[in-house]
Amino acid sequence: MFYQAIDILGTVAFAISGVLVAMEKKLDLFGVLIIAFVTAIGGGTLRDLLIGNTPVVWMRDLTYVFTILITVVFGILFVNQLKYLRRSLFLFDTIGIGLYTMVGLEKGLQAELSPIMCIALGTMTASFGGVIRDILCNEIPVIFRKEIYATACILGGASYFLFTQFPIQESYAYIAAILVVITLRLVAVRFGISLPNIYRNED
Amino acid sequence: MFYQAIDILGTVAFAISGVLVAMEKKLDLFGVLIIAFVTAIGGGTLRDLLIGNTPVVWMRDLTYVFTILITVVFGILFVNQLKYLRRSLFLFDTIGIGLYTMVGLEKGLQAELSPIMCIALGTMTASFGGVIRDILCNEIPVIFRKEIYATACILGGASYFLFTQFPIQESYAYIAAILVVITLRLVAVRFGISLPNIYRNED
Amino acid sequence: MFYQAIDILGTVAFAISGVLVAMEKKLDLFGVLIIAFVTAIGGGTLRDLLIGNTPVVWMRDLTYVFTILITVVFGILFVNQLKYLRRSLFLFDTIGIGLYTMVGLEKGLQAELSPIMCIALGTMTASFGGVIRDILCNEIPVIFRKEIYATACILGGASYFLFTQFPIQESYAYIAAILVVITLRLVAVRFGISLPNIYRNED
Repeated sequence: MFYQAIDILGTVAFAISGVLVAMEKKLDLFGVLIIAFVTAIGGGTLRDLLIGNTPVVWMRDLTYVFTILITVVFGILFVNQLKYLRRSLFLFDTIGIGLYTMVGLEKGLQAELSPIMCIALGTMTASFGGVIRDILCNEIPVIFRKEIYATACILGGASYFLFTQFPIQESYAYIAAILVVITLRLVAVRFGISLPNIYRNED
Repeated sequence: MFYQAIDILGTVAFAISGVLVAMEKKLDLFGVLIIAFVTAIGGGTLRDLLIGNTPVVWMRDLTYVFTILITVVFGILFVNQLKYLRRSLFLFDTIGIGLYTMVGLEKGLQAELSPIMCIALGTMTASFGGVIRDILCNEIPVIFRKEIYATACILGGASYFLFTQFPIQESYAYIAAILVVITLRLVAVRFGISLPNIYRNED
Repeated sequence: MFYQAIDILGTVAFAISGVLVAMEKKLDLFGVLIIAFVTAIGGGTLRDLLIGNTPVVWMRDLTYVFTILITVVFGILFVNQLKYLRRSLFLFDTIGIGLYTMVGLEKGLQAELSPIMCIALGTMTASFGGVIRDILCNEIPVIFRKEIYATACILGGASYFLFTQFPIQESYAYIAAILVVITLRLVAVRFGISLPNIYRNED
């Protein structure tokens, strides 16, 4: 119930980010739907394929498909309200990666993978949908641009294993880790923090 | 036997469409072979991976590989006959999506997925090979361009479930649905029908 | 033990080739890590997915992840030594495809696939990591350019089945096939050998 709710929230957030990018590119109705769909389910599909969890989750459970369809309809109707809010794409994308990082990490735990692999799985779940979205829309994937993106997922995922050391309920540790991911990305972008430069300052 | 024949026909149609695009791009012999191969097996591979049907079908059954090899040899030898027929790429692509939509839908039924997912699986089987072909050849995927493409697959797939309500043999419903996909795409392109515009007429 | 060593050597070679391409493109630290990672594990991941060997090998065995991490750190530290050696990328890439061709072929044998499919699996294992590396870095995949690349993998893989007809130890046939792949590619590039032209000399 709790995990399902988080999963659906992430689906909505990523579907909206897909609608915004696709409409920016003036794709047709079907194109918008496809981009919203792959953004929302791309990460989870990669995750399910890698751990052999097939048929992948959205084929067995229609909740995801209906959630995306409804989100796309609302997204198209209210795009004018969304698109003039300059930060809305960034915001929905950030909420999406926070939620999906933990959804992916949780699936890794269920598959009894090592903590490092659980964090990697969470990071892939969170970032792969956006990578496909950007490749299909002919953008350089946001993950490879200067912002700290995957780093937020990795540190947030690691924080979960730290929090579970404390005597608190697991769902609190789970939500705290989601907030760590979202906060790290917001702070990094707000203050222009990026990864250390590995190139000599030659230019 | 019947389904196998449909599958092989689709493989031939898509392999030829791959040869035509690859030779248009002046790829070398191996490049042409690869593009023909991924166009023909890309959709079925994605389908098999998503439903966990591994090793994927063309790894277990060499029929596909030999079919593609022979098709490529004929395609290269007779490319001059094909390439001056301006509609041949379009035609083979259209036949391919009609056949593959139903091949994919059938696999969904076998995996006991819901009708909506069977249609989605058919649409992916039909369109993913062409998407990879276009991405590898550095073209905007045809599926995202104005023509009704995936829409034809979706409506054709849905028509199968309608036809099976009638007291006719299953294979007739199957062939009728293939013809629906092909007809819809031909009609849509012939009469310039496209999806409704979701953007304000600002330009 | 023997196969594991070959696998790790291939991982190191491909990770270095990933670091070199990513640093050429001036990606940030995380981008370099990701490109090194997908170059090193991309081919093996595709192979494991296609034959249904999940969770994919690098999720179950952390050796690969640590190998790549250490390689990336060394690669970044010593990039200045590597990058002025004009042939180093080519060399590491060539060593990588030689080793991975046989790693992939071996997995095909274990899955009891036909020799043709074992060779195909070896070729994919060897070339797919480089294809993803080049796509993510916005380069035309090296495999589609003029050099004989996949052809070396295919002939090398075939040579293995030839060598095993002789009364020699299997590991000798294995190493001989690796050397065939590497030699074919070096010779092809050195003497500018390429596949036969399938186009009329019209330009």
